[in-house]
Amino acid sequence: MLSAGHYQILSTLSREGSKSRTELAQFLGLSKATISGLVRDLLDKDILSERELVFGVGRPSVSLAVRADAAWFIGISMQDDPMVLVLTDLHGTVHARVELPRPTDPDECINALARATEQLRQTMGEAGDKLSGIGIALPGFVSRDRHTCVACTALGWRDVNIGTAMAEKTGLPTWVENDAKALILGEELFGPLRGSPDFSMVFVSHGIGCAHIVNGKLLWGNSGGAGEISHAPVTLENSDALPCRCGNKGCLETVASLLAISNSARKIGLPTTAQELTTLATSGNPEALTILHRAGSAMGIATAQLIQMLDPSHVVVMLDTALRNGVYGHALLHEAESHILNRVGARTMIHFRDFEPDSFARGAASLAARYFIFGQDDV
Amino acid sequence: MLSAGHYQILSTLSREGSKSRTELAQFLGLSKATISGLVRDLLDKDILSERELVFGVGRPSVSLAVRADAAWFIGISMQDDPMVLVLTDLHGTVHARVELPRPTDPDECINALARATEQLRQTMGEAGDKLSGIGIALPGFVSRDRHTCVACTALGWRDVNIGTAMAEKTGLPTWVENDAKALILGEELFGPLRGSPDFSMVFVSHGIGCAHIVNGKLLWGNSGGAGEISHAPVTLENSDALPCRCGNKGCLETVASLLAISNSARKIGLPTTAQELTTLATSGNPEALTILHRAGSAMGIATAQLIQMLDPSHVVVMLDTALRNGVYGHALLHEAESHILNRVGARTMIHFRDFEPDSFARGAASLAARYFIFGQDDV
Repeated sequence: MLSAGHYQILSTLSREGSKSRTELAQFLGLSKATISGLVRDLLDKDILSERELVFGVGRPSVSLAVRADAAWFIGISMQDDPMVLVLTDLHGTVHARVELPRPTDPDECINALARATEQLRQTMGEAGDKLSGIGIALPGFVSRDRHTCVACTALGWRDVNIGTAMAEKTGLPTWVENDAKALILGEELFGPLRGSPDFSMVFVSHGIGCAHIVNGKLLWGNSGGAGEISHAPVTLENSDALPCRCGNKGCLETVASLLAISNSARKIGLPTTAQELTTLATSGNPEALTILHRAGSAMGIATAQLIQMLDPSHVVVMLDTALRNGVYGHALLHEAESHILNRVGARTMIHFRDFEPDSFARGAASLAARYFIFGQDDV
Repeated sequence: MLSAGHYQILSTLSREGSKSRTELAQFLGLSKATISGLVRDLLDKDILSERELVFGVGRPSVSLAVRADAAWFIGISMQDDPMVLVLTDLHGTVHARVELPRPTDPDECINALARATEQLRQTMGEAGDKLSGIGIALPGFVSRDRHTCVACTALGWRDVNIGTAMAEKTGLPTWVENDAKALILGEELFGPLRGSPDFSMVFVSHGIGCAHIVNGKLLWGNSGGAGEISHAPVTLENSDALPCRCGNKGCLETVASLLAISNSARKIGLPTTAQELTTLATSGNPEALTILHRAGSAMGIATAQLIQMLDPSHVVVMLDTALRNGVYGHALLHEAESHILNRVGARTMIHFRDFEPDSFARGAASLAARYFIFGQDDV
């Protein structure tokens, strides 16, 4: 078992990058002797490695780093059908990947996931002993203790304690989180924005997901609903508001999502994929252009609203490459940029990022990795 | 000087209500002897009072409370012209109030405020010795250290270090904050939502202000812009977007603020106050009805967006009584309620609250009170 002191070292090296024993002692305000003892334990357990000699004032010192192979994690994305399981190391690198159909029956689903986890573990040989936890990302509301799927429309689930069930079947601690929240937690731990205290992520897929890191913590909200911009109203004009699957009208999802785009295209006999529509629009087809422009503009307006509401340092928008490079992406950026208040301080950066199939599963794995590194949920 | 232990007791009694020494020892995980020593110091300094005997198991115990008159604070609102200065006690009760014109020249303004502070102090007699700090709320961007007004359009200020200047002139520590942020900090310390970890406040006045408490902390954002919904775009349709004083078009402020309402009314020859317009609308005047309905609906849409984005437990909307009880208030509630996703957990409560002239000044005073109680900014 690791102590609070061990976790202090792990989280410092993970957040701040490699450091020598002397630097750790200074950073943590602990004696060199205490640090040396704690570091020895972590070296003995193969959690840290000595990296390289650093030459500075005085004797050269050895920089320490968290070993990527100190622990392994299973990340599961139930965001779409098929589900994706990945095996990641402690740095978030994906080493194996499995896809399997997503059953809507909870027992069937949990059994399939437990079997797949077992099969992945078999392939790991001795490293299997270092399999340390499972994270699951799903498109729905999750209990604050990260055990239970409280509600998921896509699966028709209510109060499915998938976390405890998976932990019992696999013997591995399991944490469950909403897909957008898992995604941003993955970014916060493994991604380019690691450690940033105030940023948001948005993804445009069938629906639209969003989550925020605020003051260095995940914004959960009062009942887990923070980031549900998919069902925020997008316009003041009710005349052309479309009904949404949530029961309301005029949600952002009814205009800006892939679902909305393909629905609009289907109605007028156009091809329904983002790629085909973008190609059409680029070649000058006015209807394709209108659909994509309106969708991208709505997403841009929503992005501007997010920025005005929260003032994050960055908004990462994950979307299909075709959308990103075409009319949709241009309209999004144009509308967002032209509706953000000129700030005195730094302006929010909007980044586009490709929609990678493993993003959610990797985010899910980060849930478990977070507990390994920090000993608790620190975000 | 108070120690960390003293502040632990002060903040516990302030956040949790009165407690006995035994309860404090349990709550803080400290020995009864330590608590008794710390409490004695605070009783000697007239910061705590012994309130009443509490009978339970064992010997009756004495409950302790923070004395309202332990310290006094000046709260200054520069939100509007005239400025308002109030004198509050440690419970946030207003004991005196002064109004004075708001000069736009920084030196003139600071001199006027310092003089008014001195005059207030004169009226306090011996209690003047317990005057412990000044808080200033202004409509603009403020530096994170709460000393400098970075930018304020209403005053034409850039980088005015009003905090340090006031502290030098009065000898009292001074903290400056954006008006909406001061307002919500006042609510968090003194108001009905005291201690709530996730709530938002919105006020509708000449412009529109907004601030959030998230995970128990003020949401500042990356450059102090969190809550600037006044300049968030309100609609996807650009055709009727009006120019805003910020330089952009279609901001919420151009539709839903008192300024927008009176501008719209003036254009078609209607009376321009909220009260007169509401009376007209109630009597069936279709133009007055349209203006107020559109303005209230826009505010309702923005409220729904806020709720979807952040999922607060409460949104407090402060507005003019006439707006609140008329078409504007009804449209606001209707649009907000019909655009919030049905949640599995608790639903966000929307509260209307009257716009009280001292709200901002009291919020400003809470800045200084916060440092007295917590020894630092805890939010």
